[in-house]
Amino acid sequence: MTERAERAKAGPRQASAIFAATLDLLVEQGYEGLAMESIASRSGVNKTTIYRWWPSKDAVLAAALVKSDLLAFAMPDTGSLRGDLLALMREITQLLTGANTAPIVATVLAAAPRRPELAAVAHTFFVERLTREQPMFERAIGRGELPLSVDPAMIMDLLAGAIWFRILLRNEPLTPDYLNGAVDLVLQGTAGRIPRE
Amino acid sequence: MTERAERAKAGPRQASAIFAATLDLLVEQGYEGLAMESIASRSGVNKTTIYRWWPSKDAVLAAALVKSDLLAFAMPDTGSLRGDLLALMREITQLLTGANTAPIVATVLAAAPRRPELAAVAHTFFVERLTREQPMFERAIGRGELPLSVDPAMIMDLLAGAIWFRILLRNEPLTPDYLNGAVDLVLQGTAGRIPRE
Repeated sequence: MTERAERAKAGPRQASAIFAATLDLLVEQGYEGLAMESIASRSGVNKTTIYRWWPSKDAVLAAALVKSDLLAFAMPDTGSLRGDLLALMREITQLLTGANTAPIVATVLAAAPRRPELAAVAHTFFVERLTREQPMFERAIGRGELPLSVDPAMIMDLLAGAIWFRILLRNEPLTPDYLNGAVDLVLQGTAGRIPRE
Repeated sequence: MTERAERAKAGPRQASAIFAATLDLLVEQGYEGLAMESIASRSGVNKTTIYRWWPSKDAVLAAALVKSDLLAFAMPDTGSLRGDLLALMREITQLLTGANTAPIVATVLAAAPRRPELAAVAHTFFVERLTREQPMFERAIGRGELPLSVDPAMIMDLLAGAIWFRILLRNEPLTPDYLNGAVDLVLQGTAGRIPRE
C-alpha cells in the first residue's frame, strides 16, 4: 500500500491531533527531541496506531508539514496568473513571519543541514507544493498568460526563493511594492522569446 | 574608529590565521562552541590582540565570512551582464555545494534562526556582497543592458534565492541549463516596460 493510501486511513480528527502534537513538540524540543512516544502521549493516539499509518517520525513530520491545518493554505484562483502569484507570495511571507508558523520553519531549517532525513522531508514537502500549484499554471497557460515552454518550478524557485532569501538570509523588509515588482519582473521574463547572446 | 578601519589594522597574515581558525572551529563545534578563547589558541594570535580588532565573536565571525580566502571570490567582469550573472550563479552554486564551503553555510544556517546575533552577521555579509556587486550592475547600465529603474538587489534576490531554494530546500539538482534559463528569464524580465494590469 502506498504511503498516501495508508495516510488516507487515518481518521481526520486523530490525524489532525497527531499533526498538531508533532509541530508543537518540534518547536518546543527541536528535531532531536521529537519522538513517536511523545507524539503519542501529546496527541492521545496510541503509538502502535501512529506506527500503522506512518513508519517513522520523519514520515509523521513530513505528513504534518504537508497536511497540518496550521501550514495549510488554499491555492489562490484570482482569475489571473499575476493575482495568483501575488496571493501565493503573500502566503509564503506570512508563513515565514507569522508568530505560529515562523518557529516551525526556523526549527526545520535549523535541523535540516545536518539531517539527511529532514532534507528528504523538505524535498517531499516542496514536491507536494508544486503538485498543488500545477493547476494555477495550467489555468494561466489556458488563458494565454504563460508560454508552455516555461517551467513552473523555475517561476516558483525565483519568486519563493527571493522571499526566503530576503527574509531569512538578508534580513531585509518585504514590502507590497517589492512583491509587486518581483512578480512583474518574472512575468515579463516569461513573456515572448528569450534572447540569446 | 569604524569597524572597517580597525579591521584594516590587523596584519594580513594574522587576520587570515584568525579567519581560518574561526571557520574551522565553527564547522567542528557549531556556533555555540565558537569562543574567542579557542579562536586565539587555534590561530596562535593573542586573545587581547583579537579583541582589539573585533569586540566579539560575532564580529570575528562576520569578518571571517566576508573576508576569508575560503569564501572569497573575484567579482566577474566578462563584458556582459548575462556572462557576469552566470559566473556569479556558478560561484554561489559552488559555495553551497563545495566540500570546504557547504559545511560553513550549513552551520551558519542551522544556528541563524535562533540567534539574532547571527542574523545580524548574515545581514552584514549580504550588504557587503551587494556593495561588491554594485560595479557589475553599473557597467551593465553603462552598456545599456539594464534600465536604471531596476533594483540590483531584486535581481540578486531572485537569482541567488532560486539557487539557495533549489539546493537547500527543494533538494533538486542545478544544471547549467537551469542556470542559463533562470538568468535569461530574469534578464528578459528587466527589459522594457513592465506591464500593469
